[in-house]
Amino acid sequence: MNLSIAELEQFSIQCLLSVGLSERDARISAGVLVTTDSWGVHTHGTKNLRGYIRRLKAGGLMAQAQAAIERDGPAWAIVNAHSTLAMVSSTFAMDTAIQKARATGMGYVGVHNACHFGAAGVYAAQAAKQGLIGIAMANDTPSVSIPGSTVAVLGSNPLAIAIPSSEPFPIMLDIATSTVAGGKVFQAASEGRSIPEGWIIDHEGKPATDPSIFPRKASLTPMSAHKGYGIALWIEALSSILTGAAIAQHVLSWSFDNPSLSTNHGAAFMAIDVGSMMPLDHFRNRVAELIRQIREAPRAAGVERLFLPGEREWIHHQEASRHGIALPADALAQLSRLSEELAIPLSVGTHSRAG
Amino acid sequence: MNLSIAELEQFSIQCLLSVGLSERDARISAGVLVTTDSWGVHTHGTKNLRGYIRRLKAGGLMAQAQAAIERDGPAWAIVNAHSTLAMVSSTFAMDTAIQKARATGMGYVGVHNACHFGAAGVYAAQAAKQGLIGIAMANDTPSVSIPGSTVAVLGSNPLAIAIPSSEPFPIMLDIATSTVAGGKVFQAASEGRSIPEGWIIDHEGKPATDPSIFPRKASLTPMSAHKGYGIALWIEALSSILTGAAIAQHVLSWSFDNPSLSTNHGAAFMAIDVGSMMPLDHFRNRVAELIRQIREAPRAAGVERLFLPGEREWIHHQEASRHGIALPADALAQLSRLSEELAIPLSVGTHSRAG
Repeated sequence: MNLSIAELEQFSIQCLLSVGLSERDARISAGVLVTTDSWGVHTHGTKNLRGYIRRLKAGGLMAQAQAAIERDGPAWAIVNAHSTLAMVSSTFAMDTAIQKARATGMGYVGVHNACHFGAAGVYAAQAAKQGLIGIAMANDTPSVSIPGSTVAVLGSNPLAIAIPSSEPFPIMLDIATSTVAGGKVFQAASEGRSIPEGWIIDHEGKPATDPSIFPRKASLTPMSAHKGYGIALWIEALSSILTGAAIAQHVLSWSFDNPSLSTNHGAAFMAIDVGSMMPLDHFRNRVAELIRQIREAPRAAGVERLFLPGEREWIHHQEASRHGIALPADALAQLSRLSEELAIPLSVGTHSRAG
Repeated sequence: MNLSIAELEQFSIQCLLSVGLSERDARISAGVLVTTDSWGVHTHGTKNLRGYIRRLKAGGLMAQAQAAIERDGPAWAIVNAHSTLAMVSSTFAMDTAIQKARATGMGYVGVHNACHFGAAGVYAAQAAKQGLIGIAMANDTPSVSIPGSTVAVLGSNPLAIAIPSSEPFPIMLDIATSTVAGGKVFQAASEGRSIPEGWIIDHEGKPATDPSIFPRKASLTPMSAHKGYGIALWIEALSSILTGAAIAQHVLSWSFDNPSLSTNHGAAFMAIDVGSMMPLDHFRNRVAELIRQIREAPRAAGVERLFLPGEREWIHHQEASRHGIALPADALAQLSRLSEELAIPLSVGTHSRAG
């Protein structure tokens, strides 16, 4: 049972309008979440809409507020998100970074008073679609240990990078700085599966394979130990230290903490304007040479092709454009409950496409 | 048997002067290499001086050339290193990035016609010492596979990040985007040890534990599989695609390939001027809050303290300042041979400090 991209967007827009967002902000937010679902990244798509709306109703997120530049210079800006839905503040912030980059070559925009922004890759891709190299990152409430600690010290601080390419999609990386994202641990727990050693540690700092102890009695491990730890600190520096957002343990959880409180997440967006430095076509030709080297590399037995980062998401998106999005059961359950709570029809069955 | 920092610098300067570098460039290069040794990172320190001098003599590196800005804008520059020793061109490039950042908030400087630049962390720290967040990266001749390939496709493309802190040293990360640096595999091979599964794959794409097959019949694995692959591509984009340097397989090896040829490495340097965005003292206080959270986190049994990235290097540097640098045997052997070849005394024994 698939929902078309248009159906899912329309439903998301109606839900957001019903809790007071402007038409424009509702469209932007729905676009971010449904794009994420179209990539197959359902942990960060419309599944979370119900949680965001809970905060919008309770006052932790402000439906009518506007993100605004607090101070800026030629190649940077600090934005106060004023607790708007972070899809709106993040799109605004990346747009500002793009404008700064068009003027000077580079743009950095840091954001405070933000919230969970969904998939970082959407904002990085926002820049790449316009011919700029885009970088998006954010801090989060701690869920990841550091080498030697027994508890979570840093968030799984996501990092996304998108590079304009010679393909119809940008080269796009979107990762957590933990070994695996917390969502994978939750999913294993809900399915009663054990997890591989190395994903989490218990409160003695020992590797654990029972996902049900996370997050109360366990924390994620940092990606590649000290490497993920250091990259997460860099993200903390650009997202919170430099912006005025809450630092690490002071960031509230957007899903677990009191929904009437601002989480004060921080985020950071960078754009590099390729066109300022070389003709964009020349850049794309050089990316094509790199892609050629990658695709022509000898493959291991059973490997049909070598993928570029972002290529699987693009294939998924094309499939979703043609046949609709097959949401997993947990996401569909959240949307159904939201549909009931807000009395807005989800339209499943009426306009659904063949799976 | 330790060499003092001053002794090792003086020796390095004399060696570089003897092959035609200016006093200024010799001092800069010696400073970079000896700083690296003082951090305990001997794989990237003066051990490589003999290899660089081999290229300087053969013409692949040009002793008298000058790195120069080829084109620039308010927040960026592209530098042609003109095959100068990369310690000189990289220091110049980061200095340019710092100047751009002071003027606009952010600076990106890409470099082509470069060579192996040693430890990326030295250039990142160059920015942090002046109150800026510094980022340094470079591409390299392929030694790392990508997920699904059986051969090396990308270099171990290093990434360094340094953040001004409330401590006497910056928070500093300096990593390869491979699971482990190639130097660790060479070291295991030279000591006849096997290596843990996961560091390298053989030419069928299977995990291998015999280090002696690297690099001829094996390649390093990317850090955290697709994560390191994506980050290495980002580094390739900023270091080579955008600068005009050789792309991935077209980069020559600075140590294995004909020393009369330019390797045409690329590199990229970014600086973010904290002081443009908030008072530097305020930033440092906020870093102190993050450091407090890290240091006060509960520790696993047997863990005496939790380290910040860059802290071990700082402790090593203080030790080296007081008691001299204890070079490992392979580095000392290279310096002894260089001393003989150039007839420049290494001064070991005459001014050495107690170990």
